Amino acid sequence: MIIVMKPDHQPEDLRRLINRLEDLGLKTHLSKGEHRTLVGAIGDEGLLQEVPLESLPGVEKVMPILKPYKLVSREFKPEDTVIDVQGQQIGGKEIQMMAGPCAVESREVLEEIARALVPYGVKFLRGGAFKPRTSPYSFQGLGEKALKFLAAVREQTGMLVVTELMDPRDAVLVAKYADIIQIGTRNMQNFRLLTEVGNIDKPVILKRGMSATIKELLMSAEYIMSEGNHRVILCERGIRTFETETRNTLDISAIPLLKQLTHLPVIVDPSHAVGRADLVAPVSRAAIAAGADGLMVEVHVRPEEAWSDGPQSLRPQVFGKMMTELQKVAEAVGRTLSIQEDSDSRGDRTVAAG
Amino acid sequence: MIIVMKPDHQPEDLRRLINRLEDLGLKTHLSKGEHRTLVGAIGDEGLLQEVPLESLPGVEKVMPILKPYKLVSREFKPEDTVIDVQGQQIGGKEIQMMAGPCAVESREVLEEIARALVPYGVKFLRGGAFKPRTSPYSFQGLGEKALKFLAAVREQTGMLVVTELMDPRDAVLVAKYADIIQIGTRNMQNFRLLTEVGNIDKPVILKRGMSATIKELLMSAEYIMSEGNHRVILCERGIRTFETETRNTLDISAIPLLKQLTHLPVIVDPSHAVGRADLVAPVSRAAIAAGADGLMVEVHVRPEEAWSDGPQSLRPQVFGKMMTELQKVAEAVGRTLSIQEDSDSRGDRTVAAG
Amino acid sequence: MIIVMKPDHQPEDLRRLINRLEDLGLKTHLSKGEHRTLVGAIGDEGLLQEVPLESLPGVEKVMPILKPYKLVSREFKPEDTVIDVQGQQIGGKEIQMMAGPCAVESREVLEEIARALVPYGVKFLRGGAFKPRTSPYSFQGLGEKALKFLAAVREQTGMLVVTELMDPRDAVLVAKYADIIQIGTRNMQNFRLLTEVGNIDKPVILKRGMSATIKELLMSAEYIMSEGNHRVILCERGIRTFETETRNTLDISAIPLLKQLTHLPVIVDPSHAVGRADLVAPVSRAAIAAGADGLMVEVHVRPEEAWSDGPQSLRPQVFGKMMTELQKVAEAVGRTLSIQEDSDSRGDRTVAAG
Amino acid sequence: MIIVMKPDHQPEDLRRLINRLEDLGLKTHLSKGEHRTLVGAIGDEGLLQEVPLESLPGVEKVMPILKPYKLVSREFKPEDTVIDVQGQQIGGKEIQMMAGPCAVESREVLEEIARALVPYGVKFLRGGAFKPRTSPYSFQGLGEKALKFLAAVREQTGMLVVTELMDPRDAVLVAKYADIIQIGTRNMQNFRLLTEVGNIDKPVILKRGMSATIKELLMSAEYIMSEGNHRVILCERGIRTFETETRNTLDISAIPLLKQLTHLPVIVDPSHAVGRADLVAPVSRAAIAAGADGLMVEVHVRPEEAWSDGPQSLRPQVFGKMMTELQKVAEAVGRTLSIQEDSDSRGDRTVAAG
Repeated sequence: MIIVMKPDHQPEDLRRLINRLEDLGLKTHLSKGEHRTLVGAIGDEGLLQEVPLESLPGVEKVMPILKPYKLVSREFKPEDTVIDVQGQQIGGKEIQMMAGPCAVESREVLEEIARALVPYGVKFLRGGAFKPRTSPYSFQGLGEKALKFLAAVREQTGMLVVTELMDPRDAVLVAKYADIIQIGTRNMQNFRLLTEVGNIDKPVILKRGMSATIKELLMSAEYIMSEGNHRVILCERGIRTFETETRNTLDISAIPLLKQLTHLPVIVDPSHAVGRADLVAPVSRAAIAAGADGLMVEVHVRPEEAWSDGPQSLRPQVFGKMMTELQKVAEAVGRTLSIQEDSDSRGDRTVAAG
Repeated sequence: MIIVMKPDHQPEDLRRLINRLEDLGLKTHLSKGEHRTLVGAIGDEGLLQEVPLESLPGVEKVMPILKPYKLVSREFKPEDTVIDVQGQQIGGKEIQMMAGPCAVESREVLEEIARALVPYGVKFLRGGAFKPRTSPYSFQGLGEKALKFLAAVREQTGMLVVTELMDPRDAVLVAKYADIIQIGTRNMQNFRLLTEVGNIDKPVILKRGMSATIKELLMSAEYIMSEGNHRVILCERGIRTFETETRNTLDISAIPLLKQLTHLPVIVDPSHAVGRADLVAPVSRAAIAAGADGLMVEVHVRPEEAWSDGPQSLRPQVFGKMMTELQKVAEAVGRTLSIQEDSDSRGDRTVAAG
Repeated sequence: MIIVMKPDHQPEDLRRLINRLEDLGLKTHLSKGEHRTLVGAIGDEGLLQEVPLESLPGVEKVMPILKPYKLVSREFKPEDTVIDVQGQQIGGKEIQMMAGPCAVESREVLEEIARALVPYGVKFLRGGAFKPRTSPYSFQGLGEKALKFLAAVREQTGMLVVTELMDPRDAVLVAKYADIIQIGTRNMQNFRLLTEVGNIDKPVILKRGMSATIKELLMSAEYIMSEGNHRVILCERGIRTFETETRNTLDISAIPLLKQLTHLPVIVDPSHAVGRADLVAPVSRAAIAAGADGLMVEVHVRPEEAWSDGPQSLRPQVFGKMMTELQKVAEAVGRTLSIQEDSDSRGDRTVAAG
Repeated sequence: MIIVMKPDHQPEDLRRLINRLEDLGLKTHLSKGEHRTLVGAIGDEGLLQEVPLESLPGVEKVMPILKPYKLVSREFKPEDTVIDVQGQQIGGKEIQMMAGPCAVESREVLEEIARALVPYGVKFLRGGAFKPRTSPYSFQGLGEKALKFLAAVREQTGMLVVTELMDPRDAVLVAKYADIIQIGTRNMQNFRLLTEVGNIDKPVILKRGMSATIKELLMSAEYIMSEGNHRVILCERGIRTFETETRNTLDISAIPLLKQLTHLPVIVDPSHAVGRADLVAPVSRAAIAAGADGLMVEVHVRPEEAWSDGPQSLRPQVFGKMMTELQKVAEAVGRTLSIQEDSDSRGDRTVAAG
């Protein structure tokens, strides 16, 4: 850490600062320039993050040198983390698609959607049981009933279940049914919830807060990992900007940047990023071209009847057409994307389900 | 609600839309212009908020006419809501100051801070028992121990306690000790937590999310009110923008705008808005000049030793000087701000505490 | 246009509004709902854009129905505009690459860069003669001397010249040397400059302002087209957001959105969007996957010696490697991207230059 | 400047960096910590701003220590700059009001507005002759005719003229009529225009770009001052954020922050910041409470007929009421604000005009 002194600091300000640093067990290093005096603090920078050196008299600014996260960083673990979910790999060569309705509405509609997705090779079914809605008067999700529908459809189709956890009190319940637990954008800094999923033995998709920096996203992942759960998948889903034509602005550069800073897999949710069905396909292609390990896409058999997020949901045929495009882009960047039903595993499941 | 049809819509698109609206029990109204055809939907607009009309073929855009909130709105309740907290009014003529450390660190330091604030007429002591921290390695608060210290200092000084609730599982505990429950900026859209405090009989300070719109803030207040708790105090605390010189950008116009849209009291947290002690006073003066009903300010006897948010904490003398300035501004805008210890009540308390 | 009346408007407010609209030659249409009264104004909405109806007593809000631009819109011209620049097409099937240094530094370095680009099939050489620099103490460009170097290198290599115009007084000068005139991000709303290039017979690249909405970008293009110059190429180059890890945030969804709203070609400047050489390639791949018609990339033979924007400039070998990747992505989305020197045209040029 | 080396840098990377710095005449200082090696560069930091050290192999990041501006800084000139405009002081104890229509529409209307303002003690008449308008089809200003009307009204009323310059080609013309030249928000980084007014002997109001940082605003002021014109007045007018209820978000903390960083006067334009007449008064009170040296407010006798910015223009009576409030706030913060016609000077003028 470098501490810059004000031009008019007093000798005792400098002495006080150095004493403080040395009391913390840090070595200090003084450098007097023509315009400014600097103090370098050498040692555990983490210690200093808790100490408000800016409040000491004579201090102009404090500049950290190291990154504030550790377990999530590539410096800590150089090789890519590949997460295995019931035999499916996330973060490997294969790009994984997660698709389904915003909210689970009924067993029938969920089944209909899942059956429409299986032929395109989709392995992960997303669907909300608990829905964070801006308005208290909007549909809030079917709760445990929806979880049961998801599990039933998993039995029937072999698709794995991705669903959101909103409340630490539901952690055990959701973990019982989900193959991957999703932490939504509004909960990225719900630190209690992060701690909770850090103690569960299920992979977690952590969605970037809509106004969270890359650094804050990584710090939130660090929360989960520091509790012991190392199976974290980061999800870029658009940030809030001044532009109003789209619901959010997908931060496309976040994908390669995260790949540089962390070893964790990175997926993208194009549906919430743009908020309009007609832009989902081009933005999905871009995400894969930029290096995303997977996509989470809202699909509904009848978007105009969806109870939540209809305007951004794709119809299955449109989704299917997109899959063909995505496969080509995936191959162009040296990845694979399966767009056909995996007959073997499904055969097994069908038998198992029978 | 007005639905604008695409220029190239088909007659059946229009028919399908109108049928859909009429099925919902709405009256429709067709208006064909030179360039666009519009359909007005007359009736309960709330019904339509759940229906993704944008997904219907031929629809270009949907424009709501009414506001999506009700209980919080001035239209619903024209007169100002004044909230009584143990005899202190929030939202009346008197401007209320809430001050104290970011986090409760120890009983001694808390007492020291409270004793430094009482002589300036401060009635509300703020202090975090549960702290939402960006890093898992930062101090997370003393929990119940801190709540007990706050209660003890209330006994000694007569100051009322404002403290944050982060987890629905702690609601009963926090409500037991707090006079006002605070919902922090990162939890403004933690809807489960909102529902929880909506069912508690304590006033709630709802801080604006750092990237929440005014409308979203009001919708979150509507969550609390719709559960039955009508004692909600809104708090502007700065929004996230591109400017990096300050921690956030205080949205000063949010104060008069909220006063127009809602009957609820509006306070301001200048400390988190600017993130630097040296800007707290001018921004506090501005907040009062713009019509704020109160301020929540971080004060610490030794900011350079604070365990959290030291750089933005005021020393008591600086706070005292600011109070004198604020009183003048308050009077200039027809409000009052007491800057002297209320000897009577304190006398009572001292006896009671004895 | 729809005008929404306040719930408490007076009958004379309504009468005054209707008279005003009818005086403007518009037909009106009244619709009284339970909660609000609406007035529809039918006719030339452009007329109304100049009339501050919000200032009339009793008016709550005014909602435009039509888009404020015309010549740029797809509604006006449904088919794609393909711009021919000395035989090279922009907006057609072929993706066009524009590359070169931020600023022209010397004839030698410019030549060296151009010679390094030609083998990769790059047809457009970018280089600034006039540089908009944040600091008055930074290098401001070589001016006309740089324009002459660009022209000389065009003679030698056959590359076409793209260079920025900053000042209406330099319009004739720049037009004399440039094949495409660039309007920079800080000048997107320099309306005098837009009017100037609207009167020049050269294609124009209009870069999106760093905080301009899509609508504002289109309005600025409308300025140029309304003066008679219809050869406008739009350029997305990143918008300003709260994220600080990258210089700007590339708005990837702007590409398909612009393609929908306008018939004009859309290119992307990944270098300014990210501000770091290491993120240019993945973001470039994404831009092409999302449908961009071309890219403008900063390349320098020795970035560490560049007089401007060194940190975001690619070395030629890195650029070459990227070109191979981009070609694959282009093909995956049904486009072509040539990555080889066009021997014929160059032969001609070499002779001509001799 | 501090250069942080990557953890895996090579010895030759370090040598190359140090050689580069020493070639530039800087002294270097090496500091090896456990996790990172730092190089301090001591000497003229301005030199380094032009050198892209980030492009050197092995360099992780470059951290400047000094501010990039000089003439505008308080470090350079500790005492407040007070600017005299024909006997009126800007930046002194008296708060100066500038008011008038957005655009000059006709001599009659301008006179009517000016006559309505004089009784409230307003000394500066603002009015646009050249208008930067988002749409090419909007009213663009009357040009020189408007300048003549402004001059004529100055003769009649004694009010001083503030008007915008948009094009360097109009600089001499505008300077001939204006008492203060305004550079608008869209031209804050029109560096040619800045250079132009830097060479004119008239005070300049420099409005903050709608997405400009404080640092960029100061750099733009440095452009003007570095050319020789030291009479620069900074104007905060709202920045672009995600909030859509107001036209922009006034950055209230910019006022005290600028006062700290620079010696130049700081005024505020509340009208463009909020874009709605009903919020102008509270935000104006806030601006004065925060330390603004003046306000620039849009006033029109009939906002509903204004040719530009009607919705945010105050009627004279509303303005007058606001002036009474502002005077009280000004006094509360130790400033003065005259709200009465200065009979002497006006008497003189009337004679002079006769």
